[in-house]
Amino acid sequence: MSSHGKKLINDPNDVVTEFIEGLVETFPGLQYLNGFPEVKVVLRADVSIGTYDKVAVISGGGSGHEPAHAGFVGEGMLTAAICGDVFTSPPVDSILAGIRAVTGPMGCLLVVKNYTGDRLNFGLAAEQAKSEGYKIETVIVGDDCALPPPRGIAGRRGLAGTILVHKVAGAAAAAGRSLDDVAAEAKQASEMVGTMGVALSVCTLPGQVTSDRLGPGKMELGLGIHGEPGAAVADLQPVDVVVSHVLKQILSTETHYVPITRGNRVVLMVNGLGGTPIMELMIAARKAVPQLQLEHGLAVDRVYTGSFMTSLDMAGFSISVMKADPAILQLLDAPTKAPYWPVGVGGNHPPAKIPVPVPASRSTRSEEALGPPQELNEQGYILQAAIEAATNEIINFRDSLNEWDSKVGDGDCGSTMFRGARAILEDMRKHYPLNDAAETVNEIGASIRRVMGGTSGVIYDIFCRAAYAKLNRSAPAVITSKQWADALEAAISAVSKYGGAMAGYRTLLDALIPASAVLRERLGAGDNPVTAFILSSEAALSGAESTKHMHPQAGRSTYVSGDVLASVPDPGAMAAAAWYRAAALAVKKRVQAS
Amino acid sequence: MSSHGKKLINDPNDVVTEFIEGLVETFPGLQYLNGFPEVKVVLRADVSIGTYDKVAVISGGGSGHEPAHAGFVGEGMLTAAICGDVFTSPPVDSILAGIRAVTGPMGCLLVVKNYTGDRLNFGLAAEQAKSEGYKIETVIVGDDCALPPPRGIAGRRGLAGTILVHKVAGAAAAAGRSLDDVAAEAKQASEMVGTMGVALSVCTLPGQVTSDRLGPGKMELGLGIHGEPGAAVADLQPVDVVVSHVLKQILSTETHYVPITRGNRVVLMVNGLGGTPIMELMIAARKAVPQLQLEHGLAVDRVYTGSFMTSLDMAGFSISVMKADPAILQLLDAPTKAPYWPVGVGGNHPPAKIPVPVPASRSTRSEEALGPPQELNEQGYILQAAIEAATNEIINFRDSLNEWDSKVGDGDCGSTMFRGARAILEDMRKHYPLNDAAETVNEIGASIRRVMGGTSGVIYDIFCRAAYAKLNRSAPAVITSKQWADALEAAISAVSKYGGAMAGYRTLLDALIPASAVLRERLGAGDNPVTAFILSSEAALSGAESTKHMHPQAGRSTYVSGDVLASVPDPGAMAAAAWYRAAALAVKKRVQAS
Repeated sequence: MSSHGKKLINDPNDVVTEFIEGLVETFPGLQYLNGFPEVKVVLRADVSIGTYDKVAVISGGGSGHEPAHAGFVGEGMLTAAICGDVFTSPPVDSILAGIRAVTGPMGCLLVVKNYTGDRLNFGLAAEQAKSEGYKIETVIVGDDCALPPPRGIAGRRGLAGTILVHKVAGAAAAAGRSLDDVAAEAKQASEMVGTMGVALSVCTLPGQVTSDRLGPGKMELGLGIHGEPGAAVADLQPVDVVVSHVLKQILSTETHYVPITRGNRVVLMVNGLGGTPIMELMIAARKAVPQLQLEHGLAVDRVYTGSFMTSLDMAGFSISVMKADPAILQLLDAPTKAPYWPVGVGGNHPPAKIPVPVPASRSTRSEEALGPPQELNEQGYILQAAIEAATNEIINFRDSLNEWDSKVGDGDCGSTMFRGARAILEDMRKHYPLNDAAETVNEIGASIRRVMGGTSGVIYDIFCRAAYAKLNRSAPAVITSKQWADALEAAISAVSKYGGAMAGYRTLLDALIPASAVLRERLGAGDNPVTAFILSSEAALSGAESTKHMHPQAGRSTYVSGDVLASVPDPGAMAAAAWYRAAALAVKKRVQAS
Repeated sequence: MSSHGKKLINDPNDVVTEFIEGLVETFPGLQYLNGFPEVKVVLRADVSIGTYDKVAVISGGGSGHEPAHAGFVGEGMLTAAICGDVFTSPPVDSILAGIRAVTGPMGCLLVVKNYTGDRLNFGLAAEQAKSEGYKIETVIVGDDCALPPPRGIAGRRGLAGTILVHKVAGAAAAAGRSLDDVAAEAKQASEMVGTMGVALSVCTLPGQVTSDRLGPGKMELGLGIHGEPGAAVADLQPVDVVVSHVLKQILSTETHYVPITRGNRVVLMVNGLGGTPIMELMIAARKAVPQLQLEHGLAVDRVYTGSFMTSLDMAGFSISVMKADPAILQLLDAPTKAPYWPVGVGGNHPPAKIPVPVPASRSTRSEEALGPPQELNEQGYILQAAIEAATNEIINFRDSLNEWDSKVGDGDCGSTMFRGARAILEDMRKHYPLNDAAETVNEIGASIRRVMGGTSGVIYDIFCRAAYAKLNRSAPAVITSKQWADALEAAISAVSKYGGAMAGYRTLLDALIPASAVLRERLGAGDNPVTAFILSSEAALSGAESTKHMHPQAGRSTYVSGDVLASVPDPGAMAAAAWYRAAALAVKKRVQAS
């Protein structure tokens, strides 16, 4: 249940210091204050102490939310970020050091997430700085929409919506506006934004063991960003359902946490919590945009998808919705040098994305020319039975193939073969000209090429093309067993040539080469073609099994250690043997029945 | 051991399609070709079919490596990205569609990672496009340095170094250079870069169960980006050791995979594999830069730290080192609109980052004025014993406090208190003026303020300030028990005022308020001060225990459900009771002994 708490760090006590050192190595525009490890302040490298002629915008808080807050330091956003230890408010002295380092005559705005510790520390620092003569304003952000009001004195937590407040404040400050103006913009922005999170896992603190709080198949709704439990635990559902639920809660007219009503314009932020792949964030964004438009009647002006305010390595995301108007959009779109503010997100979106049409391929065949014959002849029936059996065998074989492949490859052999098999089965019923064996083989190649992808997709594409070319050369009404054997041999040669593999390389050829050899031998010896096919398929099976003892020379298996390989046959060879064997048995059954 | 394979997706078969839809919602500059779900091509929204007047640069491959490759589409980088299914090469038809969509008279460069499937599919597409009259060049990238040569026909894998090749090629194309030029730049770049990866976990394919291949405390070295096993499994080590090892392997003079020798200039890429927090990537970058400089004698001109070429949600990173010269740096620094190329990383780094000095705090006391007295008086000995006992109690109590806090808060109560206790103990030995109780309380506050951070840090800072102010008012040589009781009361009032909590709010006050009440009552009743202190500490303990039955009104516990709360006392109250109780017992022991 719980993961190992493994991390790529040195001493858990040094993570924040070392993070900051790496950050300033990466970004020449960032700098840190002296005083490590106790003072952890990141500031703009181009701001000189005491002489800054704009309003300084400072934020910060506990670390573990990277890129927040230090990654948002840069012209047009934060002037400095005060970093506490992981999930721990920074001490007052650090906040004071940061204020003193960047505050000029225009003064300083502190943007603080609504947590007791941050409120206390930033509050004490602000009071102290004021007593030293600095002009200071403070805006508290509490954008959490997960819990019903009232929540005692704690109020609503500050979550990813804070990043949007940073951007608005930073842009206003960069425009040269007064401290009162900048604070007013930030305060307004903080009141316009609502956020709610959902998580699949609990984050692991450096040097600690991961909590097993969240079981398999479960998710937490309304979580915070410090490992604190969520408001509710629910069964994991498709992300579309999760997104709908979260948006409904944020925009609830019962809590009325954000003043957004039908017909308003909004910006959307889909924020990863640290361990969430971009793929999943984008899938959530894909649902959230039309959901806001169609369900809630809102125009979505901007979409910010990425990991902005994380919780170490937590898997999950939060969604923020902020009411937008032209003034706020201008501040959000204003240029910034903050490294982690997303690029390419500004400007007006077209009302809907119209996909670009694909230029026609000159080799596309019109489907009308094809279509199954009215009545199958004997060869058509046999071919149909063989294709049905072979594809069904692969469809049933998917999980075993995936399992083997996960040990020696990338784990998708079964899924890839499954895709091809299903398409062949569907296309056969629609339009394969089964009475014409050569054209049917060509069509199998087309089905494969259309859906399979991957190495095996191209390999089988080549396989079918070469077999087709061989079968088509003579094109008699009925194809003889000798011609089938020749086609198999030609197909194997082509695969070997383009793929670069030979017998003993631990590939599908190790099933097909022995099969081809036995087929040719038995036909040459005068065996009944069906018997020869059956014997040939037995050779395919034992050839596939024998791959366990082979060392790979091609494909990803070359990177796998020998003892792992010895326990698993090559999944490509097993797949080839399986469909070949199923086809042979089906042909035998069909021939015997007729 | 294995994680749940939980993902925030809908149908596992639709992840790539839905990712692309979310991507183009987020970035107005990106567009996709029609033909979903079979054709998955992302292209620049500003490039019109057939009329593009620069060399088109196309890359792609299996999905699951986001933001690669679609996130690097944009002016100055890729013109289009062809997306296969997860870890599956895109089919030839999709590649052809992408080529046809963006290739103008200047031609098209295909940048292909060295995997059999990609080579076959892009190769077949290139041949087909050439036969249709397009000018096509192909560059294969194999930057993996994990395995000793030769690796059969598979050669070296294409890893994160490919992103640098994209940037170089894209910048050359944007500059209007010819197809031959662009291809030559890309080829040269591909030969200058070496990469090696290290992972802590195996990625989970959508809809599949996570492999339990990698056990606790283990890491894989030399892994690929498709879930294939690494070249070696080793015990997890501090990341500094891992980084040194990886750099040594990349720059090995035995394999000589990259033509980099002492005195060369390089760029560094630290690439997250999808589930790695930015914090850990930065910690690795922090080590890699001086290691390259000092161990390998290389000048590091640029550092790119982030998640560029991932493997779904894998935890780990790869490091790439690329030989640099002014021409390559110019191409790397050239502007691009690709959303995921990092910003703020261009330009020359200063030779070393000099931390900005912290402006002096006007309230800092010079340590020389302090220092322990030569000889302790009786009160000094008692105070010393009390502080030693109280801090040691907290030091030993750390894990229990963390455990309780992980259930109702953010799990760091014990660690935060530990930090404070350890500093107090150290500072006491160095310089607390133990014969002066008021100043000693003030110094305790200073120690706490310097290291603790967090809510409890400020709370205890306020606590000590208020107690000091009360004790200091009269400042007699010996403080009476009545004065101690007054100081405790004043401290509690201050904490209640700034923190906003009262009795029954499930905070440390629920230990201290009863303690204060009993102390005052017993002293008033004429009890011996030591007895009164002991009885008072019993009230603190039972007060702390009683927090189990309280509903929180402040702090993160307000977000936790009632039945969880009932099983755990408030860790802050338990900590307060613990140090208070330990101090009382130590005072009793000291008084009885003397």
